[in-house]
Amino acid sequence: KARTVKESTYSNRGMTLEEDLNESNQYYLSHDIAVVHKKPTPVQIVNVDYPKRSAAVIKEAYFKQASTTDYNGVYRGKYLDFEAKETKNKTSFPLQNFHEHQIHHMKQVVKQQGIAFVILMFTAAEEIYLLKAEDLFPYWEKMKQDGRKSIPKKDVEEKGFLIRYGFHPRIDYIKIIDKLYF
Amino acid sequence: KARTVKESTYSNRGMTLEEDLNESNQYYLSHDIAVVHKKPTPVQIVNVDYPKRSAAVIKEAYFKQASTTDYNGVYRGKYLDFEAKETKNKTSFPLQNFHEHQIHHMKQVVKQQGIAFVILMFTAAEEIYLLKAEDLFPYWEKMKQDGRKSIPKKDVEEKGFLIRYGFHPRIDYIKIIDKLYF
Ligand SMILES: [Mg+2]
Ligand SMILES: [Mg+2]
Repeated sequence: KARTVKESTYSNRGMTLEEDLNESNQYYLSHDIAVVHKKPTPVQIVNVDYPKRSAAVIKEAYFKQASTTDYNGVYRGKYLDFEAKETKNKTSFPLQNFHEHQIHHMKQVVKQQGIAFVILMFTAAEEIYLLKAEDLFPYWEKMKQDGRKSIPKKDVEEKGFLIRYGFHPRIDYIKIIDKLYF
Repeated sequence: KARTVKESTYSNRGMTLEEDLNESNQYYLSHDIAVVHKKPTPVQIVNVDYPKRSAAVIKEAYFKQASTTDYNGVYRGKYLDFEAKETKNKTSFPLQNFHEHQIHHMKQVVKQQGIAFVILMFTAAEEIYLLKAEDLFPYWEKMKQDGRKSIPKKDVEEKGFLIRYGFHPRIDYIKIIDKLYF
């Protein structure tokens, strides 16, 4: 059955966090603070209709696995790269929210001296944390060696940095980046 | 009339250059030299079919104007951002190959101390140049003030940097970046 959808409603999970990040990035952009954009959803286009006198219509396409994280950009000359995820879970952050290729990409970024991190939201507590990618990797590796499949919330609280929810920008993650890397 | 197309054949213009850049970026990635990806084509999705037991099919979607350039990434910690264009023109590079929002984006990147440039290919001469965004902007501004709508090839030769076509990577633009910015 076909459904008509708005562009941004694909994943119900993550909707608000994504909107808040877009608002924040827009704030950074218009105030010359940072240039960060969300990458478009990758789509494999199979069939396109070119009607006379109107715009091309994509008639058949499929969602593709992204090869990178969703957000990247530049802040004070440095490369920023991150993924944002949320969970309804109260006591831990499930690692299956991430994909192997995203972790792999963040490792490549870190190797190239870029700034890579994740923004983790616990929706029940309404808490948002910035966790450096370097602090995420060990949990991922342990999971792959049959370890636990989530990061305990208290570890996120200890290793991550709480981002207070604001009015404008709503998620001021650059403030944390500034303290951590500059 | 509907046509079945391969993902990468939308623009005939730019096809080979895009493939060569993808190959070069793949080379950089696998050799830990740089992490640069082409952004997905932005698409406005209107209607999606979710069949039982198989992948979601996008049934109606439209091409959207990109708000940034096509390529970005990280090299030695620094943010890289560029657009690649080609022309069949022998004596000048037409500026209508660029869009206002791409120029605007590159200006924002430069303000944020990122490295922004364009890769210009003259297909007849089989010559590829890297031109810093800062050296492109004045031509764009002059055009907007009713000036000439292209950059003379000799100006590209003088202000830009010839990238010799190679075997692997095919377009070694990082070599130029290295000399210019590090
Ligand atoms: Mg994502
Ligand atoms: Mg383009």
